[in-house]
Amino acid sequence: MNIAVLGCGTVGAGVIKLLMQNREAISKRAGEEINVKKVLEKDKDKCRRLGLPEESICTNYAEIVDDPDIDIVVELIGGIDPAFTFILEAMQKGKHVVTANKDLIALKGRQIFDTAEKMQVDFAFEASVGGGIPIILPMKQSLAGNQVQEVIGILNGTTNYILSKMSQEGRDFDEVLREAQELGYAEADPSSDVGGLDAARKIAILASIAFNSRVTLDDVYVEGITSITARDIQYAKELGYVVKLLAIASEEEGKIQSRVHPAFIPLTHPLAAVNDVFNAVFVRGDAVGEIMLFGRGAGEMPTASAVVGDIIDISRNKVHDCHARIGCTCYEEKEILPIHELSSQFYIRMTVKDRPGVLASIAGVFGNNDVSIESVIQKSSDEGKAELILITHLTKEENLRDSLMILRDMKIVGAIDNVIRLAGIRKGDS
Amino acid sequence: MNIAVLGCGTVGAGVIKLLMQNREAISKRAGEEINVKKVLEKDKDKCRRLGLPEESICTNYAEIVDDPDIDIVVELIGGIDPAFTFILEAMQKGKHVVTANKDLIALKGRQIFDTAEKMQVDFAFEASVGGGIPIILPMKQSLAGNQVQEVIGILNGTTNYILSKMSQEGRDFDEVLREAQELGYAEADPSSDVGGLDAARKIAILASIAFNSRVTLDDVYVEGITSITARDIQYAKELGYVVKLLAIASEEEGKIQSRVHPAFIPLTHPLAAVNDVFNAVFVRGDAVGEIMLFGRGAGEMPTASAVVGDIIDISRNKVHDCHARIGCTCYEEKEILPIHELSSQFYIRMTVKDRPGVLASIAGVFGNNDVSIESVIQKSSDEGKAELILITHLTKEENLRDSLMILRDMKIVGAIDNVIRLAGIRKGDS
Repeated sequence: MNIAVLGCGTVGAGVIKLLMQNREAISKRAGEEINVKKVLEKDKDKCRRLGLPEESICTNYAEIVDDPDIDIVVELIGGIDPAFTFILEAMQKGKHVVTANKDLIALKGRQIFDTAEKMQVDFAFEASVGGGIPIILPMKQSLAGNQVQEVIGILNGTTNYILSKMSQEGRDFDEVLREAQELGYAEADPSSDVGGLDAARKIAILASIAFNSRVTLDDVYVEGITSITARDIQYAKELGYVVKLLAIASEEEGKIQSRVHPAFIPLTHPLAAVNDVFNAVFVRGDAVGEIMLFGRGAGEMPTASAVVGDIIDISRNKVHDCHARIGCTCYEEKEILPIHELSSQFYIRMTVKDRPGVLASIAGVFGNNDVSIESVIQKSSDEGKAELILITHLTKEENLRDSLMILRDMKIVGAIDNVIRLAGIRKGDS
Repeated sequence: MNIAVLGCGTVGAGVIKLLMQNREAISKRAGEEINVKKVLEKDKDKCRRLGLPEESICTNYAEIVDDPDIDIVVELIGGIDPAFTFILEAMQKGKHVVTANKDLIALKGRQIFDTAEKMQVDFAFEASVGGGIPIILPMKQSLAGNQVQEVIGILNGTTNYILSKMSQEGRDFDEVLREAQELGYAEADPSSDVGGLDAARKIAILASIAFNSRVTLDDVYVEGITSITARDIQYAKELGYVVKLLAIASEEEGKIQSRVHPAFIPLTHPLAAVNDVFNAVFVRGDAVGEIMLFGRGAGEMPTASAVVGDIIDISRNKVHDCHARIGCTCYEEKEILPIHELSSQFYIRMTVKDRPGVLASIAGVFGNNDVSIESVIQKSSDEGKAELILITHLTKEENLRDSLMILRDMKIVGAIDNVIRLAGIRKGDS
């Protein structure tokens, strides 16, 4: 089994190391030896440091795609171009593809799967979601007897680290982000992590598998964590919740809803204990009930673990001559429910004038817009202002928006400081 | 795809219901329709209540095993006989087998796998460990690039329910067991659950997969939870631990160690938050690091989820003509390390005379036997007695045993009330 690795960055190097380190065991499990025949990498020194022979290092993709001896192309360059072209070309030459490229699948999944189907080649992407956590394969195989109802993930390690630190140490976002950058847990440009885009790509992939209908990045509503303050986290604690950036996909009455946003999740929920850079995926199926898969969602060797698992799987398909055994599972076309039609419970923090009748006026506005309040905390300050913390019952997004629009214009309302959804509320929770 | 279900008890009924309930989705995922052609069950009314047609209900196994149209035999009778004979006969006729039978695999796994290998049929048993939690398949496939170092499971829902209640409510074992029996969480004869045997069978199965070497029930050291008292659980809390019945398998220097016993596990360990009837499996691999898979370890529909997942998998093998794609993964013969050679940290609770010099004498005995003490709590009572709580550093089992033997004969020692191992201690924990 000859493979070519495109890109010798963090994950690429991890894959090459892992294949060397566990060579013997991997051969036995795969059914044949796995040989890294070519590595596509401009920085040849990176490859040399791994002990790769000079003749395996190349900078021209033609050397790989035109080599009939290469069975699998392992794409670890990331991004859309040239990864997309490379993958399609490889498939058109009958090669199988393994990738960790969530950006690409969340945008161009359909075209890739169509090509794989047409060419009857394998396309595997376990590493694209949750790093080393087995999630794609368990969903496609172990849970195949279920109708999945809901997937909730903590799918971004950077934001989970930041929120965990904010929660544990009562510190504010900017300060913790800076520290995370110094420690290498956040990138110099953290926008796709803290803005929720990274998690959105991953939930698009999981939603497509869970509900057998293609969900792309554009279908996912996205909100990041930059507006979360130490104060919100403190109130969450007081009320029995913890704040997490959640990636949620659910199906109701044949419609799919998918979104990424910070959320209050009950302390009793299994996801509430997932801290620091760890990721987890919580799945609810009609038969299996609730399961959660937990582990390291990124990093050189955890991600390599997922990539090598896929390589071994394809190797077994080769030995048993059954490539394309599990292809695209999106055999339906389901409607996407827009966010404004979703119903959630909400946490609302606002600053109001501290005088009689204010609470009644505010409650009146909510009531008129069909927003029902579950609980209220009012804290007075010394400057004639009060902080009002409300938790609503299940409320349609548009009703909440309408209420807030009216409240913003009222003189008694100083500011609507934050609005955060609740999630993961299960029967018997509240 | 025609299947026969042996036994229409809880899990059998669940499987039949699930195949009906999600018929359309399952057909699409499996690649062809799955038809329950025969059900072997003496109590025909059970089958009728599920809406099974009269002609599918039979009491004679020959009707199934001699029927060339039946592709898969789903064995859900449990126990050794006649399940073992039925499975071997089915395989010898070229039929694939799915089972949830942990007792059988933990004892006779080797013979079953040998027959499956010889006949080139599929043998799948995801439901035998952890109910609906995907664990066998992720270990055989997703984690195949790893050398697994350790598997720690909470694999028995009954004992986890009992210990959770004892911990949450400060109650004693007998009382909580009685309640669990009334609620249907414990059987009338709870011995195989509370004695650890059920968990031992499951860890034998997981160890075999994790370390690629057959581990049978006889290789597992087993201790149950009957000696755990509310007092031990209270001390655990004070010291930052929680008491769980753990099933542990590890490999060190090519030797496998496997055991089931109650253990103190740090509150910070992901398994510490796994409560009530939930199960979880924690796996440490050289590449993936730490992962944990969590869910319902038993029950009609969760277990049916795993069984149906296996049926779909075999169906895909049929469609792609690749049966026996993943067979037995025990390609090595590793030595089993006996428990007395294991090193652990220990919690020791003893009653001693409350007078000067007692602690020095006791510490002396431990010191002479190479048992080093990490921490001590002494609590004096009013009757001239004191309770001594010790946590040791890593200690060889036999050294601890020697010390305890000497201590038991000393006049200053009233009783050695309990000895419990610590487990799941990770770097940076203590």
